[in-house]
Amino acid sequence: MNILVVGSVALDTIATPDKSVKRALGGSATYFSTAARYFAPVRLVGVVGNDFPEEHVKFLKSRDIDIKGLTTETGPTFHWQGEYGPDFGDARTIDTQLGVFADFHPVIPEQFRDSQFVFLANIDPELQLEVLEQVNDPLVTALDTMNYWITGKPEALKKTLAKVDILLINETEAQMLAGIDNLFQAAQAVMDMGPGTLVIKRGGSGALLFHRPYESGGEPGLFSVPAFLLDKISDPTGAGDTFAGGFVGYLASAGSLNSESVRQAVVAGSVMASFNVQSFSLERLGSISRNDIQKRLDEFAARTSFKPIKIE
Amino acid sequence: MNILVVGSVALDTIATPDKSVKRALGGSATYFSTAARYFAPVRLVGVVGNDFPEEHVKFLKSRDIDIKGLTTETGPTFHWQGEYGPDFGDARTIDTQLGVFADFHPVIPEQFRDSQFVFLANIDPELQLEVLEQVNDPLVTALDTMNYWITGKPEALKKTLAKVDILLINETEAQMLAGIDNLFQAAQAVMDMGPGTLVIKRGGSGALLFHRPYESGGEPGLFSVPAFLLDKISDPTGAGDTFAGGFVGYLASAGSLNSESVRQAVVAGSVMASFNVQSFSLERLGSISRNDIQKRLDEFAARTSFKPIKIE
Repeated sequence: MNILVVGSVALDTIATPDKSVKRALGGSATYFSTAARYFAPVRLVGVVGNDFPEEHVKFLKSRDIDIKGLTTETGPTFHWQGEYGPDFGDARTIDTQLGVFADFHPVIPEQFRDSQFVFLANIDPELQLEVLEQVNDPLVTALDTMNYWITGKPEALKKTLAKVDILLINETEAQMLAGIDNLFQAAQAVMDMGPGTLVIKRGGSGALLFHRPYESGGEPGLFSVPAFLLDKISDPTGAGDTFAGGFVGYLASAGSLNSESVRQAVVAGSVMASFNVQSFSLERLGSISRNDIQKRLDEFAARTSFKPIKIE
Repeated sequence: MNILVVGSVALDTIATPDKSVKRALGGSATYFSTAARYFAPVRLVGVVGNDFPEEHVKFLKSRDIDIKGLTTETGPTFHWQGEYGPDFGDARTIDTQLGVFADFHPVIPEQFRDSQFVFLANIDPELQLEVLEQVNDPLVTALDTMNYWITGKPEALKKTLAKVDILLINETEAQMLAGIDNLFQAAQAVMDMGPGTLVIKRGGSGALLFHRPYESGGEPGLFSVPAFLLDKISDPTGAGDTFAGGFVGYLASAGSLNSESVRQAVVAGSVMASFNVQSFSLERLGSISRNDIQKRLDEFAARTSFKPIKIE
């Protein structure tokens, strides 16, 4: 099934303790699309400036991402500059230049409006609502957001949350959105705002999935995975969007959102994110094969499975 | 099979954002024994002062822990005072009074020397060596340690590490011991020091198991679990020792250390630790049933299992 993603296509300047890159390809829609495209067709809506390098357009095309919704405006492309410490935790933002992204109002091309899966990357919740009004009747809608919108546009965000099926956010965002530190309690408060499926991304600590109904038919609504341990991390930029791409991409390939596919989607998201952090920009994520993905999915299962324990 | 544990029996004064307790029962050997006793017979060696309340002795006896190796010396019992912040991360130590524990030299009673499983809780590595010299030919030996000994007695610790089968330590201790931040690399460096099995405890981020041989017979040597998510944490004190108790206890009940039992042991350790953090001191850990444990083991499996993913 088709996936529509609306989000940023950007240039990133990134420093880690080991290495730095300048104006590399980045952006939430870029990472999402590249990851999701391994599983299903992807249609991208976004905006870049007239400084956006042709090689990056070629990259997106080479990944067979449908970029008919990527417009070019006069002005600079969204540019983010950040740096990571030795623990590769949250980045420190040095500078953000929105450029042409500041006036972005997503227009969904006619031929994209029938998309069955819709992913609203981290943009102004008012724009996310505009997108939802332009699509026909998608099977599944998913949303990302961030602290900036949680504190800055809480009302618009709540309106958007009431309309989507899935919310993917990180741990601190979930805590901030709910106003509760405990993740179990925070998750239930966030789900009361609308989304029947909530994924909380925890970086090196893995991911949590809450899925309604909590306990119907004996199926637990809580699923929990560790992160895929790597012997080296190069650059975590885009890991959250890549996770979302693997997650939504897998669901679109499965064709439905149920208590089994949604767990597998969390594993797919975790695995795709693990590829992404192994290089800067889209280097690794954009050059793996489906066979590489299958191997790591198998390894993920091997690293997390155990035989049932009966002590009685 | 029988388990011998050598470690501290202490009094803890603990403050959390919600509640405080004064001079409650604590100590590494106490938490370990209480958890392990749900799975196998436990023999405890330690020391308390003549101020140690009789009710705590009664508690240990009521849990059917063999305390013939618990001696009483003139002077105060080991007393630790600490406090936790709202995130229930590492405790801040306010005061440590070793009391009679300062001169502790473990003497293993004759009838304890045939123990098949030996757990050396976090004490001076020189004392851990003394214990190993006093036991006959145990099937499995396991060790805990801490930053204090890693920096203070590195040579004695390395001698001890070369003699044990299993090391259980937390994340920062593994990094410090190896001198490497990346946990995958740190684990391999630590195992090169001796232990064929390494458990890295990560608190709310779960636990990692490394088990030699890494890949023989197609069995992966790396196993990874998330923490059991709870809707409320009361007091994390003793969680690491409780994990070790569930881990070693489960192995002793299984009767051997192999690539299957050691994974199940990590799950058992995680589950026992999850009970412990739900109350102060031994309140919850000391009052659950084996049926409570089985239910949570089942829930742990339900929360972490997923069907294999085939994308080809």
